[in-house]
Amino acid sequence: MKKFIRLLIGSGENCADIRYITGISTPDDFIFFEYRDRQCAVLSPLEIDRGRAAAKAGVETVCDIDFGGRSRIAIITRIAEECRCKDFVVPADFPFGLAEKMRAAGFSVTAEENTFFPQREFKTPAEADAVTAAQRAAEAGLARAVDILRKSTVSGNFIHYNGNVLTSEFLRAEIDSEILHHNMLPAGTICASGAQGAQPHNAGSGPLKANSPIVMDIFPRSPETGYWGDLTRTVVKGKALPIVRKAYDAVLEAREYTKKLIKPGMYGAAIHCAAEAILEKHHFYTGSNEQGQFGFFHGLGHGVGLEIHEMPRLSPKARTALKGGEVVTVEPGLYYPEWGGIRLEDLVYLSPEGKTVCLTQAPDFLEL
Amino acid sequence: MKKFIRLLIGSGENCADIRYITGISTPDDFIFFEYRDRQCAVLSPLEIDRGRAAAKAGVETVCDIDFGGRSRIAIITRIAEECRCKDFVVPADFPFGLAEKMRAAGFSVTAEENTFFPQREFKTPAEADAVTAAQRAAEAGLARAVDILRKSTVSGNFIHYNGNVLTSEFLRAEIDSEILHHNMLPAGTICASGAQGAQPHNAGSGPLKANSPIVMDIFPRSPETGYWGDLTRTVVKGKALPIVRKAYDAVLEAREYTKKLIKPGMYGAAIHCAAEAILEKHHFYTGSNEQGQFGFFHGLGHGVGLEIHEMPRLSPKARTALKGGEVVTVEPGLYYPEWGGIRLEDLVYLSPEGKTVCLTQAPDFLEL
Repeated sequence: MKKFIRLLIGSGENCADIRYITGISTPDDFIFFEYRDRQCAVLSPLEIDRGRAAAKAGVETVCDIDFGGRSRIAIITRIAEECRCKDFVVPADFPFGLAEKMRAAGFSVTAEENTFFPQREFKTPAEADAVTAAQRAAEAGLARAVDILRKSTVSGNFIHYNGNVLTSEFLRAEIDSEILHHNMLPAGTICASGAQGAQPHNAGSGPLKANSPIVMDIFPRSPETGYWGDLTRTVVKGKALPIVRKAYDAVLEAREYTKKLIKPGMYGAAIHCAAEAILEKHHFYTGSNEQGQFGFFHGLGHGVGLEIHEMPRLSPKARTALKGGEVVTVEPGLYYPEWGGIRLEDLVYLSPEGKTVCLTQAPDFLEL
Repeated sequence: MKKFIRLLIGSGENCADIRYITGISTPDDFIFFEYRDRQCAVLSPLEIDRGRAAAKAGVETVCDIDFGGRSRIAIITRIAEECRCKDFVVPADFPFGLAEKMRAAGFSVTAEENTFFPQREFKTPAEADAVTAAQRAAEAGLARAVDILRKSTVSGNFIHYNGNVLTSEFLRAEIDSEILHHNMLPAGTICASGAQGAQPHNAGSGPLKANSPIVMDIFPRSPETGYWGDLTRTVVKGKALPIVRKAYDAVLEAREYTKKLIKPGMYGAAIHCAAEAILEKHHFYTGSNEQGQFGFFHGLGHGVGLEIHEMPRLSPKARTALKGGEVVTVEPGLYYPEWGGIRLEDLVYLSPEGKTVCLTQAPDFLEL
């Protein structure tokens, strides 16, 4: 069988593959290669000491100044010389400009058609524990928000806390501060009410609405392990409209039902469709009009690990079956600009043995 | 002149180029193209409503389902049809796998050799204001840390605050919480003392050392504008060793001297070398031994904008001259595992008219 050098370039902080295989987290890009039994990270003088300490067992670390120099193509040339091989396989997201330079230097470069480390999709119990640790911080952030909302008062359409109008920005900062004190990093926490909550990726801004659903989507990352958590709850401060209560019940039913479908052999698309069916059973339909999309218009879930969105997907296009080892979100949602959004998201671990464990411990309730 | 379609793919959050040109910030990747006078972002149904609202004047937004479908290659094929052009120019970091698919589909793909939007290096006053706003949050975070350190007491090698041993983790969480309440996002804040402070990228962990330099490097980002701030101060709680005081004075002199060199026509390498010369004048030498690197072994500074590290560099290899419009850090540092690290970092804006403005307003002192 022909031997290729498998080559990666990325920062430990932004490239999940390089962090997965090396265990090294850096703000700047570095090069990693794998050839036969050799796995080696090429680090700058600035990173070499920390990288050496953090590297996983079996991963060699070398300093670029002793390994071809500081330019990428010089390092790659040195790698080719040491391996006596000119054929490289790189991930699909490898930088095109560098691949072109490698070809110009006489190397062959092929993009890996599949994920670079397919085993990343299947988590060991230790990896699931790392996700769970981040999830605990998300839950602490949510608990802080709930505490603030409980201590708040409603006045007209506004919520008052400590004498001030409660805003998305303030509630988000409080959630995120709680996460930081759990030694996790918050990232893009959503606190959105009213029409903002009807846009699933709108982080929310301005005064939060009373008597209206507040979507809180919280996804912290461990700076130490790199693994993410992911949690969404939706609450109403004050009194929910009947349609909001109905939507909440439908979304909760869809979540609880589809969580039970997370089993080896189940197809992601089938699990997604089950959620759609339950929402439609409750007369919540999906479509679009001049105002934009409404209903349930995102995938039911996604894998969570060293990336916040990774394989597998639970979506209409997910044509592979679960095998065991996946950590996935289950997050049905309903969005209508007239009254806002409801999303309820749990994290589920399907163990390598096929046992399903819910990694989320947050309570479910609508009004407070 | 031959016409090319300029093509980008990335998320607004992680791809500075696509955010710069479109003004759109998304967690997921989207496609942007530019052909003759047309600039167009192709967004998923999940992002189209927010994207349309956020798009810069002159940037068209279309929904992928109305524009070739959900697959990247289908969208790109549609772009080629609409432009009646099969020749694409992409940035060097464009995903290699997609470029290969484009070639297989009959398109020509060329990597841009320079930065994709060279004008990103030169900030308008409005962009400098956006950096300054993030910098104000960094300064507020620093002020919070200084307040905690002032209220702390020294006991042996430890620092006590509110009855607890003060740790890197706690101080970082307090800095970051302050940043969050200024509606900015903290990212990788460093609070490192002792030998950890001698590793420039070590974020710090465990108890902070009394009578020893504590490096605090704070770089928040505005979620709204995407622009970063960057600030470093180093302080000693208690009494600094004479060598630490000497190093602090040398680094401060190097920073203040080199800030004055930020002028149109000055070379980044020359400014860096001036800092080196000042540190050596004070008998602080750079090198490496079995413990690793010591002295001043990183670049003096880097551009700051929609990326925390961007062009131009102030480093030995920076062979281009400043022109006007750059925002750069000036951050000399000294690192010795025996006693730790000192880094003092200001941000400087060289206006398009060639006027130098220091964007940092934090005080300079060593002991507290």
